Amino acid sequence: MPASQRIDTAIRAALATASAEPAPGRLVAALDHAVLPGGARIRPTILMAVAQACGDDRPAVTDAAAAALELVHCASLVHDDLPCFDDADLRRGKPSVHRAHSEPLAVLTGDSLILLAFDTLGRIDRGDAARALDLVRCLSAHSGMPGGICAGQGWESEAQIDLRAYHRAKTAALFMAATEMGAISAGQEPDAWTDLGALIGEAFQVADDLRDALLQEEDLGKPVQQDDLHGRPNVVAELGAEAALARLKDILAGAIASIPSCPGEAALAQMVRAQARQIVPDLPARARSAV
Amino acid sequence: MPASQRIDTAIRAALATASAEPAPGRLVAALDHAVLPGGARIRPTILMAVAQACGDDRPAVTDAAAAALELVHCASLVHDDLPCFDDADLRRGKPSVHRAHSEPLAVLTGDSLILLAFDTLGRIDRGDAARALDLVRCLSAHSGMPGGICAGQGWESEAQIDLRAYHRAKTAALFMAATEMGAISAGQEPDAWTDLGALIGEAFQVADDLRDALLQEEDLGKPVQQDDLHGRPNVVAELGAEAALARLKDILAGAIASIPSCPGEAALAQMVRAQARQIVPDLPARARSAV
Repeated sequence: MPASQRIDTAIRAALATASAEPAPGRLVAALDHAVLPGGARIRPTILMAVAQACGDDRPAVTDAAAAALELVHCASLVHDDLPCFDDADLRRGKPSVHRAHSEPLAVLTGDSLILLAFDTLGRIDRGDAARALDLVRCLSAHSGMPGGICAGQGWESEAQIDLRAYHRAKTAALFMAATEMGAISAGQEPDAWTDLGALIGEAFQVADDLRDALLQEEDLGKPVQQDDLHGRPNVVAELGAEAALARLKDILAGAIASIPSCPGEAALAQMVRAQARQIVPDLPARARSAV
Repeated sequence: MPASQRIDTAIRAALATASAEPAPGRLVAALDHAVLPGGARIRPTILMAVAQACGDDRPAVTDAAAAALELVHCASLVHDDLPCFDDADLRRGKPSVHRAHSEPLAVLTGDSLILLAFDTLGRIDRGDAARALDLVRCLSAHSGMPGGICAGQGWESEAQIDLRAYHRAKTAALFMAATEMGAISAGQEPDAWTDLGALIGEAFQVADDLRDALLQEEDLGKPVQQDDLHGRPNVVAELGAEAALARLKDILAGAIASIPSCPGEAALAQMVRAQARQIVPDLPARARSAV
């Protein structure tokens, strides 16, 4: 089964457990809205690629890990869109969860998806309990405080931002979770995989800054110029678009160079290159000509 | 060490991991505000009493479980107080988290505390990985969808409420988590302990309805008559205060009768009676005379 299908199946299986009767139907609908059909599923795709590079000897563990990671990512998008943060009307080209389903249901959707992520890990076979517990720890560390995506959002409430900690927590954390959880799922030590995740995360941050600064809303399916609006740091504002694009290419080259030696090393390098091609040409002609 | 001290130590140890540098200081302060000095810590106290009744052969596992459960409870209070839910200015006699620290930080505080709960379980020694994973599954099931406290809040957005599912999810779920997690921490099957948690939870729901209907804000340290205000079901409105108080006493008797046979059975029954005495006289003379 191709990775994309494994990820989709695992996510739908997790969602199905959350909607077993009796369940409040509107919250069930809001969970579906937040997770399906979904975006590019980049984080679980990276997770699965790393697991496969490491042998993927427990596919059910890898599937659970991939679903859990994407569920936390979706939760973060729902909460980031809330009126008290970005107040975004659109996400992935459709109404944000609080616009479509109400603000209380959006808060509960985020909470429920975080909990569903850990429930999914908690259902891993007890024969693989040690790996499962490592996944719990890895996912919570990269999601919460002090170094996860919650911390990343939290930095935006500070008068003085630690920029390195901010970017690492806000964007890179879930990519580090992706590479580390991929390794853990296949029974490997995660530490050798942290740099790859951090560099892919940094690349996505720069790409996202470029998109936010240069694209139009109809290209992106969500509001643009949000960094400027919310006074958030943006590498394009800092360095200019040309230097930012050069930096993006350097980071991606570094990411490929950082891949640890393993049976699936060549295939993984190819996957990172494919992801990179998706990032860069994602800037349409109008934006690229502005670079 | 007395249970209350073990619980406090475990909670503070968890909070310390969340504030390791570099961390956004305002979010750290908001986490502390949400968790310390705390209320009666009823749920972890019950958890620990059940673990002790079952032998408490892995005290470090019990401590982590107790802290994790209380962190999820505190997270739920922070999110329940948000403007889009109860819009509460007060909690435990001090400003609610969004009043004291802003609404974005309150959303992040709830999210971070949920994640910290699972991080705390994820740090359990790998020699106890199977118990730890059972704790992850038990806590997520009683917190999320379809049967946990998120589901309980979710029912309030439904046109037709399934009252039994609503009360079980909204209030009883974390008490079922308390008794089941206590048993799991000590290596026992949790199923025999579900009824005790459900009944204690039901007692607290009735007591809470009595307090909400009959007390004044200064007695309670948080807004009253919230059920009436938000159109939520309340057993006092349904049955009258006298019948509600009689029902509370019946439920508590049932709870004590439901305690499974175990070495610490007598001590546990005494603890439930002590909790019960705390619930009922918690209604001061003014309210009891209204009954």
